[in-house]
Amino acid sequence: MPKPAKHVFVCVQSRPPGHPRGSCGEKGCADVYNTFLNEFQSRNLWGRFSLTNTGCLGPCNLGPSVLVYPEGVMYAGVKPADVAALIEEHLLLNQPVERLRAPAAVWG
Amino acid sequence: MPKPAKHVFVCVQSRPPGHPRGSCGEKGCADVYNTFLNEFQSRNLWGRFSLTNTGCLGPCNLGPSVLVYPEGVMYAGVKPADVAALIEEHLLLNQPVERLRAPAAVWG
Repeated sequence: MPKPAKHVFVCVQSRPPGHPRGSCGEKGCADVYNTFLNEFQSRNLWGRFSLTNTGCLGPCNLGPSVLVYPEGVMYAGVKPADVAALIEEHLLLNQPVERLRAPAAVWG
Repeated sequence: MPKPAKHVFVCVQSRPPGHPRGSCGEKGCADVYNTFLNEFQSRNLWGRFSLTNTGCLGPCNLGPSVLVYPEGVMYAGVKPADVAALIEEHLLLNQPVERLRAPAAVWG
């Protein structure tokens, strides 16, 4: 496997109902991760790009969280419908999707 | 949480005994991750650096795998005793630990 041009990390952390931190799990991160998996497969992105599920990335209350390296861009509140834009703009055109970025107070 | 100067990703993937890909789990990645956690705590590294557990990072047969961004340096066969060097050399001095790097054929 070559070193990828971009590496997408998707939080898949779950916590018990009522946990004070909440979690990306309760906010639908599994659907986001699965959408990325399907898009990577259908667009044949493996090799140029990598995709990894993770534990907690930090901003649980604003999840689902998606983090893209090497730029270190944190996205907040990502929905399955946002995945195509993240792939087409950030991964393929190297243009981070500003409307989805986490606030600077969270990751700045 | 500020954007970290370095972000350490530690594979904690397990697979059933006998699975053809093996896993970092069977090679002791939990001890590696826990050692990182303890070192982050005792050296007060939170804030400057981030640490995240992950699913599969790819080179399962050479695990435990540790990946550090933004450089995108993949380390292979990491043992708990290697964690101090990774912190002191790569995180604090910005000098990747060459002896622990995954072969270029794996991540190059």
